[in-house]
Amino acid sequence: MADKKKRRRAVATSDSDSDSESDPLHFKSKLKPDSSILQTLTALKSASASTSRPATLSSLNLPTAFREVSDLPLSSVQSTIESLALSLAHSILSGHGFSFSVPSRASANQLYVPELDRIVLKDKSSSRPFASVSSVRKTTITTRILQLIHQLSLKNIHVTKRDLFYTDVKLFQDQSQSDSILDDVSCILGCTRSSLNVVASEKGVVVGRLIFSDNGDMIDCTKMGMGGKAIPPNIDRVGDMQSDALFILLVEKDAAYMRLAEDRFYNRFPCIIVTAKGQPDVATRLFLRKMKNELKLPVLALVDSDPYGLKILSVYGCGSKNMSYDSANLTTPDIKWLGVRPSDLDKYKIPEQCRLPMTETDIKTGKDLLEEDFVKKNPGWVEELNLMVKSKQKAEIQALSSFGFQYLTEVYLPLKLQQKDWL
Amino acid sequence: MADKKKRRRAVATSDSDSDSESDPLHFKSKLKPDSSILQTLTALKSASASTSRPATLSSLNLPTAFREVSDLPLSSVQSTIESLALSLAHSILSGHGFSFSVPSRASANQLYVPELDRIVLKDKSSSRPFASVSSVRKTTITTRILQLIHQLSLKNIHVTKRDLFYTDVKLFQDQSQSDSILDDVSCILGCTRSSLNVVASEKGVVVGRLIFSDNGDMIDCTKMGMGGKAIPPNIDRVGDMQSDALFILLVEKDAAYMRLAEDRFYNRFPCIIVTAKGQPDVATRLFLRKMKNELKLPVLALVDSDPYGLKILSVYGCGSKNMSYDSANLTTPDIKWLGVRPSDLDKYKIPEQCRLPMTETDIKTGKDLLEEDFVKKNPGWVEELNLMVKSKQKAEIQALSSFGFQYLTEVYLPLKLQQKDWL
Repeated sequence: MADKKKRRRAVATSDSDSDSESDPLHFKSKLKPDSSILQTLTALKSASASTSRPATLSSLNLPTAFREVSDLPLSSVQSTIESLALSLAHSILSGHGFSFSVPSRASANQLYVPELDRIVLKDKSSSRPFASVSSVRKTTITTRILQLIHQLSLKNIHVTKRDLFYTDVKLFQDQSQSDSILDDVSCILGCTRSSLNVVASEKGVVVGRLIFSDNGDMIDCTKMGMGGKAIPPNIDRVGDMQSDALFILLVEKDAAYMRLAEDRFYNRFPCIIVTAKGQPDVATRLFLRKMKNELKLPVLALVDSDPYGLKILSVYGCGSKNMSYDSANLTTPDIKWLGVRPSDLDKYKIPEQCRLPMTETDIKTGKDLLEEDFVKKNPGWVEELNLMVKSKQKAEIQALSSFGFQYLTEVYLPLKLQQKDWL
Repeated sequence: MADKKKRRRAVATSDSDSDSESDPLHFKSKLKPDSSILQTLTALKSASASTSRPATLSSLNLPTAFREVSDLPLSSVQSTIESLALSLAHSILSGHGFSFSVPSRASANQLYVPELDRIVLKDKSSSRPFASVSSVRKTTITTRILQLIHQLSLKNIHVTKRDLFYTDVKLFQDQSQSDSILDDVSCILGCTRSSLNVVASEKGVVVGRLIFSDNGDMIDCTKMGMGGKAIPPNIDRVGDMQSDALFILLVEKDAAYMRLAEDRFYNRFPCIIVTAKGQPDVATRLFLRKMKNELKLPVLALVDSDPYGLKILSVYGCGSKNMSYDSANLTTPDIKWLGVRPSDLDKYKIPEQCRLPMTETDIKTGKDLLEEDFVKKNPGWVEELNLMVKSKQKAEIQALSSFGFQYLTEVYLPLKLQQKDWL
């Protein structure tokens, strides 16, 4: 009976029509006029624009040597491959056979550089000789991939990793082999995978105060309805970015993105809203980085309050381990963790039934994250993550719907922005 | 040694720079001028536009009774819920308690209607009384969902199924429960799920000769670069479709879509290119249907040559079983199977190493499909599927890349169109 009463109360509480009830701490009444919040955001933007250009590996003068790749124009990719082919031919003609010097991408060769706030690759390389039983296959595949990339550079077209695999299934056998050697080839040539014109499939969408060109077409993202604009797979055909936004709102999930797009949140608080719908793909990471660099806007992240939310934030922020050779081009430094943070659960009185217990794996992932350098350098994040692991509770962005479908856009986010409540 | 020679030959064959070699049967030389192919397509379009409006359930005068839902304006959804609530209150006040009459969505209550070429729901219903231990929970959830949908209709906003779940986690317990009852509520109210303003997350993209409005913004899909326009989650805000296309090209996979978009295939052969990136989601199905109905265009499908390719085609064409109550609104009749068809594998000399052996599950799925009515009514499809199951070979669209990255857009598709090679 008591239980029934409780349930009835829960139903009443989550009725979004009665705002005073739905808002246990009357959060809505704490909201100042939008003009005051806009002032806060303008200050944030100026601060973000004035921060000096981030350090580069070479400017740091570190004792260790590192290997990084950069975006190269197609013509350079082409000539680099041709020079390499020439030197291999020389080597063969002079009776030495041939071999590739391949940078190691193993984790033992990776290092987190706090000054850069990202993972980079040290300079260990290994030799991949053709005349060796153990490496003849890999050497052959490497040569073939170089040939295919050369073709792409001549034609100036983009293909997927899957297309690449299918050009020679008999040799590659399975896609993981051509994929992995494609990464090797990036390292060998010293250029990003996008420079090779091999693209990943697109997942991300963008909406809000942004105008940019996609393959020559001008796109106005305030005029993209609710669906938004699909983020193009090939960043090299994206350009001419213009914006009057005050910040970029990076959203983990589709559902929250939809709410923000339908409510045209970007009209009330000028911003660009972007999501990769879960795990960040390369195209979205490149797009975010380009926006941040060209528009000098602060990036605020809205992710689930669980270890994966933070992990996703970290992939945008300091890179994934298996593409660390390309971290300089893929990462967006200085992303602020806006929400949903573990401390928000109590602060915003997220009802118990909307919180989920963390599984053993969740807790382990959380504890592992506490050991990561990129978390440790931000004391606020450590505190939040400690709270999460201790409380053993997680919550999705959608949990805010328990106070009404539009609580996210009408109360939670405006209040967060007003209170500068980011870390 | 022999093997090595063969491999070397394979490498040479798949070299896309040498066209005569890359094209074992000189397919490229079979291509007529585009003007001739365009004539073929114009004829196809006229034929498609002149076919009489498809039959409706009521026009068939079938002996059995059926239940179908339709798109209702928000105001009707609202008033229908209010009338229902009134009748429940009456029933309670007159001492009879209350119960819902819920149409059965079980497979025993489903029927494939060949005249309509889709699955429909028969009219079996069951009672869901509040005053019964076995149904009190479901009745409570049904009431709560009706209340939430009523709120959505008042506010005229869209939410996801996940949002809906989070408004009352304690009651719903897990999302499958609120999802399933949401489908019940559609049936009870006799309207589509889109009419309830509950949308699925968007996955699809569209590019090519289409102009439409998304939430009031006019979108020109020829000016969407390579990324294309994300298909909006809420079809009711999509309208004003205009097009000079001759057909719609429905593509299963992302990679093929990208190739077509980058090569601006729609400029050579006026068409609209659309993909859901794998399994069709509701938003893409609704969008395709709307295009076909409003623009009266033929739909040609490009899917993998495996049982799942055909299954995906069938979901677009005649619906999925668990949403059969809504088949009239979700399906696009008369989709032509353009490729990649099992007979193409030999016809286009897809190299052995680019074909994959079918697994036991694949073969079983293929055999099951042969029993499905929607396959049986098309003798051409039966023949192709028989060939697939017999040869035990499958191939992806990407397998065409073995003849060069642009073989798909420059040879395969133009030749298919020229030869009217669709089923």
